[in-house]
Amino acid sequence: MLHSGLEGVVAAATRLSDVDGDRGELVIAGYQVGELAGRATFEETTWLLWYGELPSTRELEGFRAGLTAERELSPVTIALLRECAGRHVDPMDALRIAAGTISLRSGDPCAIVARFPSIVAGFWRLSRGADPIAPRRDLNHAANFLYMLTGEAPDQERMRGLETYLNTVIDHGLNASTFTARVITSTGSDLVSAIVGALGALKGPLHGGAPGPALDMVFEIGDASRAEAILRRKIESGEKLMGFGHRVYKVRDPRADVLGAAAERLFTRAGDMSLYALARAVEATAIRLLEEYKPGRRLQTNVEFYTALLLHGLGLEPPLFTPTFAISRVSGWIAHAMEQKRTNRIIRPQSVYEGPRDRRWIAARDP
Amino acid sequence: MLHSGLEGVVAAATRLSDVDGDRGELVIAGYQVGELAGRATFEETTWLLWYGELPSTRELEGFRAGLTAERELSPVTIALLRECAGRHVDPMDALRIAAGTISLRSGDPCAIVARFPSIVAGFWRLSRGADPIAPRRDLNHAANFLYMLTGEAPDQERMRGLETYLNTVIDHGLNASTFTARVITSTGSDLVSAIVGALGALKGPLHGGAPGPALDMVFEIGDASRAEAILRRKIESGEKLMGFGHRVYKVRDPRADVLGAAAERLFTRAGDMSLYALARAVEATAIRLLEEYKPGRRLQTNVEFYTALLLHGLGLEPPLFTPTFAISRVSGWIAHAMEQKRTNRIIRPQSVYEGPRDRRWIAARDP
Repeated sequence: MLHSGLEGVVAAATRLSDVDGDRGELVIAGYQVGELAGRATFEETTWLLWYGELPSTRELEGFRAGLTAERELSPVTIALLRECAGRHVDPMDALRIAAGTISLRSGDPCAIVARFPSIVAGFWRLSRGADPIAPRRDLNHAANFLYMLTGEAPDQERMRGLETYLNTVIDHGLNASTFTARVITSTGSDLVSAIVGALGALKGPLHGGAPGPALDMVFEIGDASRAEAILRRKIESGEKLMGFGHRVYKVRDPRADVLGAAAERLFTRAGDMSLYALARAVEATAIRLLEEYKPGRRLQTNVEFYTALLLHGLGLEPPLFTPTFAISRVSGWIAHAMEQKRTNRIIRPQSVYEGPRDRRWIAARDP
Repeated sequence: MLHSGLEGVVAAATRLSDVDGDRGELVIAGYQVGELAGRATFEETTWLLWYGELPSTRELEGFRAGLTAERELSPVTIALLRECAGRHVDPMDALRIAAGTISLRSGDPCAIVARFPSIVAGFWRLSRGADPIAPRRDLNHAANFLYMLTGEAPDQERMRGLETYLNTVIDHGLNASTFTARVITSTGSDLVSAIVGALGALKGPLHGGAPGPALDMVFEIGDASRAEAILRRKIESGEKLMGFGHRVYKVRDPRADVLGAAAERLFTRAGDMSLYALARAVEATAIRLLEEYKPGRRLQTNVEFYTALLLHGLGLEPPLFTPTFAISRVSGWIAHAMEQKRTNRIIRPQSVYEGPRDRRWIAARDP
């Protein structure tokens, strides 16, 4: 029996996260995503995934120090990012290419997590003709990323907004990139190899996690009064509304609520409330119209809609959205690699052959 | 039901290769491996896998030209290999790191296949303090690889020996690296991402394809008269004999026969027959003793034993064995990626959660 997408096949037991699509719940190492995401620092959530418990203050202090010590990029990595920028490489490709070089110095988990924001921010600045900004040791992981992008340390609201985002998307069951990391690890290979493979999978458009288009739609609508007409036209012409519906969640994606609340908080205190209000109006109209045109499908706002709004509010441009997702998810990939390593068993399914047989060699000739 | 290694789960239908472990057969795109390996050039076998039929002379000519045009490494890749050599990076890591940069210029199938020998040979020479040798357009894929390693174009026997090896290991069902390439491709990602992920999986010791130790054993024995005593001691002390037994093949690995014949031919015409005779004597003694100590297990010589002998006869040192395997298998990975792309379906299995639930947030504190 052929399971060509392995849909419904259970390939791993995990203590990392539980996606319950029917109930609309996401549990991260025992915590509902809403319980954890707005409270923890990204360092705490990473530690939780890797070691199963939140860290003590002392453990957290050591962990932060270990991460900050590994932020600097090596000259060869910066040279490579400069070449990527000169050739206008896609930011996810640049991240994959540069992440591959992390093992030149150290392939340990802290080095990988610490280096990701430096690569993404460094490439971003080089792409715009600016020099990379060296990391600041007194800032935490999230704040330092925003600092390396702009040269300005973010205020408390912005830092909290980014941490909430990073905590929310850190892990999500056995998606294709996480599964890739587990397959590579299952051969006994190293962590950088697993992470580079996962980055390659995350890049694919079928993976999900492309929040840019959801925001484009909000900008295209521009004013709440135009939402109904534009959305009706899109639905009637068969266009898929970006930011709605999810393969797994049959009810509301719990991450959308967390990110929606974070966006509201950010826009209220540090942003442009009119954009937030417009997005909420577009969302309400879209859900109403989707129920009208596709009754019973229960299409709900997904994580991408509020990711786009929140990251935009943080000042990030759309090409940075997927790399920023990777800055978070890499901690989940590493946690899965650690878990897979403990099972010590190669993941090797079978194929069924449906090609020809009994062919005989004939030397090449003209047709 | 948890399938933690996905053993026995059929994850793909393929027209590329069929591994029949009970009958000891390997079919490559319709040809028994023994029918094809000693006759085709590597360019022909690659074309066969990619397009399903052997090329006409005209197609072959165009394909060769396409490959030779893509052999040169870019300066940034050479700089990266120099850094890898300076840091004494493992050759498979160097190949993964440098292969990641192929997409800087072109990510098409020919560019990837053409660039692999240049990377492996370039790194090998840089590791030994020598400069890389530029490729020669008048040599075919196999001969040019040997030329870039040594600076000398190989004779006909050596070229034929390497082509036979490359053809023999080009594809082998859904092993872990091939599966990795298919998972990454299934998200809609690009070919270089898929190949870099596959390289990461191939590196793992559980993947198989580590022929070095089989040869070490032959050298350790040194003289056929010592084979029985040394092998008895190894088996009695519980040591695994490298080069014997395979997870899938319950009878003789068909690739071992092909490579054994190629090694005999090479050593007869261009090598040291005493080493070949010693290896055959070690093999015969090992099989006899394995049957004596583990009756009914039917442990037979596997592909690694004769890979080691053949590649040694070609003048390759053991650290080059796995990278040379990759130079062949990359054509198989690309063929699987092309095939997976046509299914246009994401590979995404599920996980089952067995961690805690209902945890409540408590801020970090001292233990």
